[in-house]
Amino acid sequence: MDEGNGRRLYRLIRPLHPADFADLIERSSGPERRLLVTVVGRFFDPDILAELDETVREEIIPYLGDDILAQAVAALPSDDAVEVLGELDEAGQARVLRAIPERDRVLVEEGLSYEDESAGRLMQRETVAVPQHWTVGQTIDFLRTHQELPNDFYDLFVIDPERRPLGKLALSRLLRAKRPVLVADIMEARFHRILVHMDQEDVAMLFRQYGLVSAPVVDEDDILIGMITVDDVVDVIDEEAEEDLMRLAGVAEDDLHGGLVATTRSRFSWLAVNLVTAIVASGVIGAFETTIEKMVALAVLMPIVASMGGNAGTQSLTVAVRALAMRELTATNAAKFVIKETTVGSLNGVAFALLAGIVSWIWFGDPQIAAVLAMAMVINMVVAGFCGTMIPIGLDRMKLDPAIASTVFLTTVTDVVGFFAFLGLASYFLI
Amino acid sequence: MDEGNGRRLYRLIRPLHPADFADLIERSSGPERRLLVTVVGRFFDPDILAELDETVREEIIPYLGDDILAQAVAALPSDDAVEVLGELDEAGQARVLRAIPERDRVLVEEGLSYEDESAGRLMQRETVAVPQHWTVGQTIDFLRTHQELPNDFYDLFVIDPERRPLGKLALSRLLRAKRPVLVADIMEARFHRILVHMDQEDVAMLFRQYGLVSAPVVDEDDILIGMITVDDVVDVIDEEAEEDLMRLAGVAEDDLHGGLVATTRSRFSWLAVNLVTAIVASGVIGAFETTIEKMVALAVLMPIVASMGGNAGTQSLTVAVRALAMRELTATNAAKFVIKETTVGSLNGVAFALLAGIVSWIWFGDPQIAAVLAMAMVINMVVAGFCGTMIPIGLDRMKLDPAIASTVFLTTVTDVVGFFAFLGLASYFLI
Repeated sequence: MDEGNGRRLYRLIRPLHPADFADLIERSSGPERRLLVTVVGRFFDPDILAELDETVREEIIPYLGDDILAQAVAALPSDDAVEVLGELDEAGQARVLRAIPERDRVLVEEGLSYEDESAGRLMQRETVAVPQHWTVGQTIDFLRTHQELPNDFYDLFVIDPERRPLGKLALSRLLRAKRPVLVADIMEARFHRILVHMDQEDVAMLFRQYGLVSAPVVDEDDILIGMITVDDVVDVIDEEAEEDLMRLAGVAEDDLHGGLVATTRSRFSWLAVNLVTAIVASGVIGAFETTIEKMVALAVLMPIVASMGGNAGTQSLTVAVRALAMRELTATNAAKFVIKETTVGSLNGVAFALLAGIVSWIWFGDPQIAAVLAMAMVINMVVAGFCGTMIPIGLDRMKLDPAIASTVFLTTVTDVVGFFAFLGLASYFLI
Repeated sequence: MDEGNGRRLYRLIRPLHPADFADLIERSSGPERRLLVTVVGRFFDPDILAELDETVREEIIPYLGDDILAQAVAALPSDDAVEVLGELDEAGQARVLRAIPERDRVLVEEGLSYEDESAGRLMQRETVAVPQHWTVGQTIDFLRTHQELPNDFYDLFVIDPERRPLGKLALSRLLRAKRPVLVADIMEARFHRILVHMDQEDVAMLFRQYGLVSAPVVDEDDILIGMITVDDVVDVIDEEAEEDLMRLAGVAEDDLHGGLVATTRSRFSWLAVNLVTAIVASGVIGAFETTIEKMVALAVLMPIVASMGGNAGTQSLTVAVRALAMRELTATNAAKFVIKETTVGSLNGVAFALLAGIVSWIWFGDPQIAAVLAMAMVINMVVAGFCGTMIPIGLDRMKLDPAIASTVFLTTVTDVVGFFAFLGLASYFLI
């Protein structure tokens, strides 16, 4: 790239797998990204678009130009085409849609009409469906002669005359059956169908739970309209895991590839909330100013109580958020879980009360301060265990994402309770 | 269950999918788990074992008895059998191995000889491999007549006479070719083979990057010895994501299903480390005791500096840990990433220095305290951005898991720097 030798660069990157080429674009800086895209020009592999991170895709789409973009979108399977177009503004979508063939256009437009993060957005329209009265032989002959098939498929769907799915037939099973056998006789009649409006997280859950590689998607009338394959689900699983991890720390998902200003701005709001809660905690300390004036050791020790509560609470919180995401924590076992976490908090609270008490006794030579520290520690860690579970469970019940705001709530509680218990007990018993 | 009506219970749970039955066991309490397992007795579906969480599986295995367990292990695909047995102690393994048929035993023993979390542990030994000179017709006839095939497979592997893989053939492609065509002519000759010692995280990376559904596993001599399918990889992806999330909060992975004592104990060590770091931070405050004595407002404001640094640092840290796990942060872009994060830290540092300065000025009516707070805030947030990226990158370079210890390091740094900068500047300028 540095040599500016476009032809040599082209020869070097041409053999790359689309996924690897997408990685190369992602890791490059802005001007390099532009160079990489323009040097490939009209030989740009449409699959690269599908592999790119959203933020980066948005950046490079203008470099491609509408013609190449329209060509690329038309060449992609419908799920990828919908994903790429879904990020353009309406004018951009209209421009590209006008440039692609009518048949593809209808499919893509339909895909765009489904809600973001729904099964409809995830599915591809291309499926292989055969009528129930067909034999294995007829099916294989159909596959051999029919050109318009999806590139990759792992199951066939057996349908009735109204296109309602009756069963699912794995290719490995089709291949092992003799030609005169009816597909209806070897299909799996107990299979999982996915409603087009289903949330992508639920789709991922189904695939994971039952080890699926593909599943039929149906509309409200149970008509087969597409299929979802496991590779799309793997992306969803990654996305959802990333979302939880990032949200717990108050970071947007597109953070890594975002620009400097965008990143700074997106982090700002979370930090602003934290500033407010830190000020609230400071307000609690401020209420005990005269106590601290009389006994500065309190100011030295108080962060220990708050910090231990925060950490113990975060442990409970993280387990709860993950268990909620994996549907392992439900209404049936929530009470059991809260009790367990609160008990764990109490047990560790007592243990650390002893430890911290001993340390502070040696440090300040004052058994009374040590006793107050120990008491505050137990209180804060019990509260931490209880709130670390109740906050995410409560958010989940209110149909809010338990990952998104729970850390702020939790640390506010553990800071306020920690400072208040410690300084309050101190001014009651010691002053 | 409460009625103690075993027969009715049996009729209710019999139709459950193994994955759902495993969920039911996981969500039940100890005695209920025992009841669920014993009521099914010798009709216990082996697949349930494969679906269970490790901790719970360990608990219920004794209820099954060696006979049923051996039967179950023999019935499972080799990868699942290895997983189940891998958790027993040596005596338990030997007992079960003695009870299963010789042929299965050899495969399982071999599987157990591979390292934990390696491709060898993940693979199943059952594959479908055909010689390169075969035609499509021969292959289909072989599949139709041969009984000993894996239950689910999505690709065939084309091999040479030494069993070295030459290509990979998707079933959907096989089905679309005419009978006289040679498999060697339609196979993909560019495919990804997996070395048996490869780490499972790298396996997941390959599947994710290239959208694979199955891949051949080879030994050091490039001989085909098994295959890995995408459903196992989905489990790995879940596991690895969970690991990162849990480790960042200092929780063990089997935490949710662990008993009360085990959970309390496993959380204890992390909290103990945090107690030490909290005491170190308190030591920094202790060094400024006389300063605080003269100006109690400092004790009120100091947690704000530490808390903002901790939060800003955690944002950088989380992005870094995720990017390292997804191989998006490598030696080539590490410097760029550290610079970006440090700059984001500085920009937000200046913004929050202003905000916090104004608030504290209004609160305490003292512009000098406000100025010191603002300066300390900038310093701590720049340090947070820098260390939030350097700590995980450094741990990763030292071949350590960046998720496991980085939060402790980071908050120690931001607490110490926060308190030291604020109190240090205050005693220099104000006292």
